[in-house]
Amino acid sequence: YASTAYGVRMLSKDISNTKVELDVENLMIVTKLNDVSLYFLTRELVEWVLVHFPRVTVYVDSELKNSKKFAAGELCEDSKCRESRIKYWTKDFIREHDVFFDLVVTLGGDGTVLFVSSIFQRHVPPVMSFSLGSLGFLTNFKFEHFREDLPRIMNHKIKTNLRLRLECTIYRRHRPEVDPNTGKKICVVEKLSTHHILNEVTIDRGPSPFLSMLELYGDGSLMTVAQADGLIAATPTGSTAYSLSAGGSLVCPTVNAIALTPICPHALSFRPIILPESINLKVKVSMKSRAPAWAAFDGKDRIELQKGDFITICASPYAFPTVEASPDEFINSISRQLNWNVREQQKSFT
Amino acid sequence: YASTAYGVRMLSKDISNTKVELDVENLMIVTKLNDVSLYFLTRELVEWVLVHFPRVTVYVDSELKNSKKFAAGELCEDSKCRESRIKYWTKDFIREHDVFFDLVVTLGGDGTVLFVSSIFQRHVPPVMSFSLGSLGFLTNFKFEHFREDLPRIMNHKIKTNLRLRLECTIYRRHRPEVDPNTGKKICVVEKLSTHHILNEVTIDRGPSPFLSMLELYGDGSLMTVAQADGLIAATPTGSTAYSLSAGGSLVCPTVNAIALTPICPHALSFRPIILPESINLKVKVSMKSRAPAWAAFDGKDRIELQKGDFITICASPYAFPTVEASPDEFINSISRQLNWNVREQQKSFT
Amino acid sequence: YASTAYGVRMLSKDISNTKVELDVENLMIVTKLNDVSLYFLTRELVEWVLVHFPRVTVYVDSELKNSKKFAAGELCEDSKCRESRIKYWTKDFIREHDVFFDLVVTLGGDGTVLFVSSIFQRHVPPVMSFSLGSLGFLTNFKFEHFREDLPRIMNHKIKTNLRLRLECTIYRRHRPEVDPNTGKKICVVEKLSTHHILNEVTIDRGPSPFLSMLELYGDGSLMTVAQADGLIAATPTGSTAYSLSAGGSLVCPTVNAIALTPICPHALSFRPIILPESINLKVKVSMKSRAPAWAAFDGKDRIELQKGDFITICASPYAFPTVEASPDEFINSISRQLNWNVREQQKSFT
Amino acid sequence: YASTAYGVRMLSKDISNTKVELDVENLMIVTKLNDVSLYFLTRELVEWVLVHFPRVTVYVDSELKNSKKFAAGELCEDSKCRESRIKYWTKDFIREHDVFFDLVVTLGGDGTVLFVSSIFQRHVPPVMSFSLGSLGFLTNFKFEHFREDLPRIMNHKIKTNLRLRLECTIYRRHRPEVDPNTGKKICVVEKLSTHHILNEVTIDRGPSPFLSMLELYGDGSLMTVAQADGLIAATPTGSTAYSLSAGGSLVCPTVNAIALTPICPHALSFRPIILPESINLKVKVSMKSRAPAWAAFDGKDRIELQKGDFITICASPYAFPTVEASPDEFINSISRQLNWNVREQQKSFT
Repeated sequence: YASTAYGVRMLSKDISNTKVELDVENLMIVTKLNDVSLYFLTRELVEWVLVHFPRVTVYVDSELKNSKKFAAGELCEDSKCRESRIKYWTKDFIREHDVFFDLVVTLGGDGTVLFVSSIFQRHVPPVMSFSLGSLGFLTNFKFEHFREDLPRIMNHKIKTNLRLRLECTIYRRHRPEVDPNTGKKICVVEKLSTHHILNEVTIDRGPSPFLSMLELYGDGSLMTVAQADGLIAATPTGSTAYSLSAGGSLVCPTVNAIALTPICPHALSFRPIILPESINLKVKVSMKSRAPAWAAFDGKDRIELQKGDFITICASPYAFPTVEASPDEFINSISRQLNWNVREQQKSFT
Repeated sequence: YASTAYGVRMLSKDISNTKVELDVENLMIVTKLNDVSLYFLTRELVEWVLVHFPRVTVYVDSELKNSKKFAAGELCEDSKCRESRIKYWTKDFIREHDVFFDLVVTLGGDGTVLFVSSIFQRHVPPVMSFSLGSLGFLTNFKFEHFREDLPRIMNHKIKTNLRLRLECTIYRRHRPEVDPNTGKKICVVEKLSTHHILNEVTIDRGPSPFLSMLELYGDGSLMTVAQADGLIAATPTGSTAYSLSAGGSLVCPTVNAIALTPICPHALSFRPIILPESINLKVKVSMKSRAPAWAAFDGKDRIELQKGDFITICASPYAFPTVEASPDEFINSISRQLNWNVREQQKSFT
Repeated sequence: YASTAYGVRMLSKDISNTKVELDVENLMIVTKLNDVSLYFLTRELVEWVLVHFPRVTVYVDSELKNSKKFAAGELCEDSKCRESRIKYWTKDFIREHDVFFDLVVTLGGDGTVLFVSSIFQRHVPPVMSFSLGSLGFLTNFKFEHFREDLPRIMNHKIKTNLRLRLECTIYRRHRPEVDPNTGKKICVVEKLSTHHILNEVTIDRGPSPFLSMLELYGDGSLMTVAQADGLIAATPTGSTAYSLSAGGSLVCPTVNAIALTPICPHALSFRPIILPESINLKVKVSMKSRAPAWAAFDGKDRIELQKGDFITICASPYAFPTVEASPDEFINSISRQLNWNVREQQKSFT
Repeated sequence: YASTAYGVRMLSKDISNTKVELDVENLMIVTKLNDVSLYFLTRELVEWVLVHFPRVTVYVDSELKNSKKFAAGELCEDSKCRESRIKYWTKDFIREHDVFFDLVVTLGGDGTVLFVSSIFQRHVPPVMSFSLGSLGFLTNFKFEHFREDLPRIMNHKIKTNLRLRLECTIYRRHRPEVDPNTGKKICVVEKLSTHHILNEVTIDRGPSPFLSMLELYGDGSLMTVAQADGLIAATPTGSTAYSLSAGGSLVCPTVNAIALTPICPHALSFRPIILPESINLKVKVSMKSRAPAWAAFDGKDRIELQKGDFITICASPYAFPTVEASPDEFINSISRQLNWNVREQQKSFT
């Protein structure tokens, strides 16, 4: 029995190492268009794909449709391709066609990758992320090498990392109503919205000077009542972001776990804890809390939570597959981004 | 494919929740006999088992064989049982009969449970641990209630927690030899010993005033060169012990992960990291290190490591099954032992 | 010269150990009147003082003037004292008569002591603080013993701890104006308000999802540009409050220093730092910051800071003298409040 | 009275800002002679001083006396100076002539400066420290600029930083003797040695697998019984070294304080604490400790402490004056050495 469990765990490892072959027909390109130069770089990439991959249709941001800088018309003439090979995606289109794209390519920083996560709230295609400057945690390909890297990925078996996302649902507590027939109080809870997040969900005190008082439940039973500036529930991907600033451990993306990290906890013994991804968490603003709390999802969509409101958090069935640049990419990224243990050797104590 | 991976992960959860029925014929009792009172408590337990479970043979520490305080002979007379129903275990017997016992019962503290782990270096029977005073992390049953708890466990389906152990092997580097035929240098590495540990393996500077310089490899590639007082590789079980003192996160025992925690690292950015249990770690004393290092396994068996010596660390195929007292026992234990977030509410800042 | 410096430092120690004799004529009593029972306890204290210290005039909160529960008129009859011996303080009266009171007695928690600090923004009389339940960091006398403690303090030489306060001044940056004569831009900065705080001044991101970008200057030169949820500048008294939650060290109240502690800093190497009390700090919201910041003074008076606004922080010339209950009171308070290193001995690792 | 205390504290600040004029006749040069190149650099410095400061006698390490690489004889010929202007220091000479030297110049790293502290165990002359490569915490002058920096320091008023040292005395407990006359037990304690340290004194468990149990006394009263890998008592200078690795705060050298930092404490609430420099500390190996402890002074002179042995720690009357390179040198050094808050701005969260 113990060996069965061990076997299943090793099987899980094998699966995560499986390579897949992409058959790219519909390629989506996502760029953060807050910088003029990105219009030109996007154009450069699109042109190159159209020329070198004749079977591929390229979908770009609909904002580029009438952009003179992007100049789709000229682009087709230059690359001698049919105009129909350039198409335009919108958020609405994605919502209805999430299994439509075979590969998403991003240009920009880690923020652009988080944006992709936010628009693909169900199934996510493999995501390949190009950095324009230095590499990031999630942007593991250099744009300057796209002419070598893109064909390598599109023509060969690749390994993707199925990054855990968390499914967070907000529930609002309404004033209890009295059933006119029975005279009994009925508690009414309304489901507000659901977010599949890639980095972390944060529940904090927001502008309030008081600590929020948050009840934390795991699989239905009360784990603790947290008095702190807030709580962070982070994925392994998010363990290098806000959770780290708040004192959490780094978590390798291949670990199936949720990092729960308190922000400035009142009690010294309230330490960060690593929970299994299979747990169902609930964070509720205590009825005794002196102040409301605020939630944020990957740093966005801030919403105020009143007393009695709560958020449920569990592993999303929709993981976020990122194309792997190299097997060492996580260790490389923490070395690079966090100077993980790089300092002149054997120096300060001599 | 992503959904297959998700399915396997959920399957893994189901397996870990499976209940098993024990059919106890051979019961082993482990007590730390450093206290006179424990002789009498052990005797009390044995007598009760002999009377209430007529099919069970009880194995006690061979140190009790001729003990007047334990007085096996009288015990049999009192409980009117055949003498052959009390037998004596030795470490040698266990080494050869690890699948022989159906249940291990411990009396004492967490240290006694670690001792069980140290003598069962391959297959481990389910372990049920009684605390004499307050409960510990691993001692989750109270001795004062054994008359209710023991029959409940022995007669019903139970849930065990398959606690991860780490398999650590020490390799000694010998001076390179010159092959007399080819004249080439041959590196000779000798395997010294293997330890399956339940809490943590520690590699530290020992009595040396200098930092040890430790090369850390993951699946064969160099992750970092650690300059620190030492490194701790802890199981989830061990995350509440030394790793926590060194600043590591708590890790729920159902998370399949290894917590790697540096001890007083030289570099501020060298933060604790949670690695997948499937990783193969190697910690090597750098050839550039100014001092040797010392390894310890669950705090025991300290051994000096010279330059070039190394230890490999991976998930042991022999997990350590502990009988679950309640589904909340981990959260209960950290609340109780670490005062996890229990402090008078909303007080110090008002 | 080195020995002169050493001598001055030791002189500083002697001064802080000097005992003074109080000659109490005007006694001020401060209670947080948010609880009915406090009216009666205050009355009990006042009556006792009137009877036992015939020379003393007692000043109570003007809210008690017409309170039926306090019933000042009956109180004078009962204690056979002139009505003029009970007077009423207001915040306005204190602002104009800060050297008028010889002793302040508080009933309540640490919050009541912080309130005294907030209303005495210049000179502060010695403050003796009674706790109603368990002792706090600042409430070091038990109300149940006031009949023994109060005469001891009022009739004998006592030692007060001159607790450091920080003088914080907020400056608002206005849009640069153009001098109509010269055509040159003139930067206009307006001084908004000054706060003498006993615990800490906090500058944080408030409700903003973005990190605030704060420039930190020490004695005029730029120390760092902090990217964090915020910065805390705490007194030794405040080192046991919010600064501790954010990871700062405990600072003994007799150390003349300012604890600067970042809140969730972006960079792992941005560690808490202890600065000399003689430093002049300036925290400015960077012109490059993506969001405004919020300041709070002892957790109150929150104010929004726009880009270019800044706060200056230095040692206040008006220290806060608390009556010492015992020479060990700081160590006692951290043991009691924080369970400083009290845990069952030699347990978890065995 | 409060204002007197405030005045004395400000006076203390003024004193520490006083500038002094050196009148250098006897210049001592300290080099770590573990590297051949250092012989030549030392020679270069000595020659330059002999030529440009005709009144100065230069004292070099007696190891250089007969060194061919140093070649003192030729050096005098080359620089046309009397041979008597080069002299040789020994540790014995320094022990008897500590007020003899007017300036100490070091070549090397921070370790060389710690060495100067170890040989000047009473009065210390001003110390000017040249770094050969990048600057350190204590080596704040670049050797490549010595031709500009040395005359500037020797000919003008300079500011020195009087760095706090700690005076540590080891006491050994002998077996109690019975007085033959009275029959009473007499406790015999022997004073072993005294060390004036610049960085830190460490008391740790050394090679022992067990935690040491250390009783910590402040001004005679028991503060706590520490269960930890050890305790560090650091000066502000030492706050950037081992204490920082163990989780202590940075302490500005102008703060008069002792940083007490536990190493891997058993209890989560045992946090680092900043104590006044006027405190008298005593660290004693508890009679209940399961293992001996080890002490080290600035990382040297390790000595085993048995049960009952203790160390007293207080501010040394002999501060360590370092020549200041610039008023920002502390902030510069932590920025440089620890990457204090330097990381690419506003990046990882976007």
